[in-house]
Amino acid sequence: MTLLNAPTPTLAGAFGNAVALSCRECGTRFELGAAYACEECFGPLEVVYDVPRLTREHIESGPQSIWRYRDLLPVPADVAAHPGLHPGWTKLVKADNLARELGVKSLWVKDDSGNPTHSFKDRVVGVALSAARQLGFTTVGCASTGNLANAVAAAAARAGLRSVVFVPSNLEAGKTITTAVYGGTLVAVEGNYDDVNRLCSEVAGDQPWGFVNINLRPYYAEGSKTVGYEVAEQLGWHLPEQVVAPVASGSLLTKVDKGFTELGKAGLVEATPYKVFGAQATGCSPVAQAFRAGADIVKPVRPDTIAKSLAIGNPADGPYALDVVRRTGGAIADVSDDEVVEGIRLLARTEGIFAETAGGVTVAVAKKLLAEGLLDPDAETVLLNTGDGLKTLDAVAPVVGPTATIAPSYDAFQKAGLA
Amino acid sequence: MTLLNAPTPTLAGAFGNAVALSCRECGTRFELGAAYACEECFGPLEVVYDVPRLTREHIESGPQSIWRYRDLLPVPADVAAHPGLHPGWTKLVKADNLARELGVKSLWVKDDSGNPTHSFKDRVVGVALSAARQLGFTTVGCASTGNLANAVAAAAARAGLRSVVFVPSNLEAGKTITTAVYGGTLVAVEGNYDDVNRLCSEVAGDQPWGFVNINLRPYYAEGSKTVGYEVAEQLGWHLPEQVVAPVASGSLLTKVDKGFTELGKAGLVEATPYKVFGAQATGCSPVAQAFRAGADIVKPVRPDTIAKSLAIGNPADGPYALDVVRRTGGAIADVSDDEVVEGIRLLARTEGIFAETAGGVTVAVAKKLLAEGLLDPDAETVLLNTGDGLKTLDAVAPVVGPTATIAPSYDAFQKAGLA
Repeated sequence: MTLLNAPTPTLAGAFGNAVALSCRECGTRFELGAAYACEECFGPLEVVYDVPRLTREHIESGPQSIWRYRDLLPVPADVAAHPGLHPGWTKLVKADNLARELGVKSLWVKDDSGNPTHSFKDRVVGVALSAARQLGFTTVGCASTGNLANAVAAAAARAGLRSVVFVPSNLEAGKTITTAVYGGTLVAVEGNYDDVNRLCSEVAGDQPWGFVNINLRPYYAEGSKTVGYEVAEQLGWHLPEQVVAPVASGSLLTKVDKGFTELGKAGLVEATPYKVFGAQATGCSPVAQAFRAGADIVKPVRPDTIAKSLAIGNPADGPYALDVVRRTGGAIADVSDDEVVEGIRLLARTEGIFAETAGGVTVAVAKKLLAEGLLDPDAETVLLNTGDGLKTLDAVAPVVGPTATIAPSYDAFQKAGLA
Repeated sequence: MTLLNAPTPTLAGAFGNAVALSCRECGTRFELGAAYACEECFGPLEVVYDVPRLTREHIESGPQSIWRYRDLLPVPADVAAHPGLHPGWTKLVKADNLARELGVKSLWVKDDSGNPTHSFKDRVVGVALSAARQLGFTTVGCASTGNLANAVAAAAARAGLRSVVFVPSNLEAGKTITTAVYGGTLVAVEGNYDDVNRLCSEVAGDQPWGFVNINLRPYYAEGSKTVGYEVAEQLGWHLPEQVVAPVASGSLLTKVDKGFTELGKAGLVEATPYKVFGAQATGCSPVAQAFRAGADIVKPVRPDTIAKSLAIGNPADGPYALDVVRRTGGAIADVSDDEVVEGIRLLARTEGIFAETAGGVTVAVAKKLLAEGLLDPDAETVLLNTGDGLKTLDAVAPVVGPTATIAPSYDAFQKAGLA
């Protein structure tokens, strides 16, 4: 197999209980390394494990971060001792107010805005940077337009790794600042996200760098399983009956399913049935369109939505997301940008959680699926909020503002009818 | 005593082990209620307790929020069962990279940007809203220009209380959005912060509302003690030798000291000596000036600094902060706005923590105190980061940006000398 620019051979135990990379298409196995595409069929590679028996007590006695699940991740046993942001173990919020508004019996919000850089990307970057360290990379990179850039730059700073983050040069100043402040190398590329991505693949093929979502992608993607693990543990070690996940590349949704399945196999939870639902914005809804059409193939689209963190027109894991949703009896739906904004406001107003646009998509899709009878209001349901509204203020700026503007006097206050 | 607009009598156990309000000046005691100023001397009131013996195990078995310390707060025993944001239990980060840069042996950053609305204000609001509920208030309010407004609006939404938040009408749109999105009443007042504050005092005297930092202030302020409790517990149940806290009203600094003292008295930690240091921005440094002058009185100033969350020109707890710093052998210093920005960048670059301006003040002051020999580099030191850089992007915008801007080609990448 091709070990793309892995500078040094790996050490025993470098990837914990992971034993190989396996092609998701043809099943061919490869040794663990900085590879991401099958040599036989070019299918994507996935980490496979030889997991020992685990007990709930063992996990519960671990750190309050994703590293409590280290035995189920491609990381060494001492991963928590290495410098890092220690993401995860975010709040699972009992969303009783939202449940009442939506007419749902038992509703939870997994709030990943509580991660160190306020998105679920801190989880995947945490695992990717552990792999980078074990493979001997001293520079890590990514192509991104937002959350991933923040997460890589911040985690690399703490870990003492060099970061090289590539972004489109027309990115909003705010998003540039939240990455550049960590002091890594930030490369503005005169082109759109596709151009940036293409350039990064070229760089990954030539420089001895670990790109978290390219040559480290099999490890990176495993980080998303921890969302599923945490939900189950925080529910008191059982699987929810329904989960609604936003779909960008489709990776998060498939990994939450993988996480639930693994917990069942490991005997940590009873393997009760669950349905996985996907949420997209209509302006970038290739997977929802394929779901509705009953198609196996996801046709690429040109994104046009305010939900930028979900705006992947050609989602790598789209077909796998379709598989999971169909196998579990779920559905994938999409909502308009206006509904996204309403979703953000609904979650904020009821639960005091200010989500980024992706969270608005998830809430609005849940509402739609309930109206359509696809989501069961009597089943225990978990919505995944993957990011923070502070990063997407522009989305709500046009519709949110002061209730009243008054002169600084009690008389003015009384006349305004606010009492 | 005057119970300002308390709508209903309080229930037994409503305030846990708290037994009275006591004047910090003359010591006169009053019954627990919505009062904040002594009837005898107009001094500020503080909550006093009759605390039973507590064990570490009891606290460790509690929730992963400030409510693990419920026995030391003016809240009922079942406080965690009420709807709320459940703030606290934020990360205490071992800051080895920053320690190396500063030449400090053992350094920690208590990172309160991990709170639900990303500042330590979630702690104080949590306690204030519990008091509001126990006193029968159904509307809560505050005067604020930022973090407190966010925290009140979000927590009230989750708790099912009405919120009425007063802000200056010239507030940046971004800060208006992050409060208004939660759907409470947001009143923009045509005036500066002092005008807003004055109006709120009038409203608090007339409406049956609980203003968290006015008539609920004694409860509110107690929330800051939890920073001290958590630091000690997260260090493995011992007090740090030095702590550096930002100073706005001065309340946080005094309450961290109170928290440390209480832990010692309760036998939860050994009552080892510690020094408390205060950090201000030069553009609003009345307490630092008083410290340097050896004065007991804090002379009000007109704030002019980018550290807006610390810009209180007439700090209510300034004299008490001076007392604590002098009693423990600490110091209070101030730094220029340029140093604040460098402090933000230093923390981000070394630890991957993007702090708001107040955090930059704390880091920069720590650096200055080390240079002046006032902070001991060999003593275990904790810096308090109270907020999130995402809320004060303007502060670093002028000095942070892309390393290079290139055409979307590998050739351009190579020529830019980034490899």
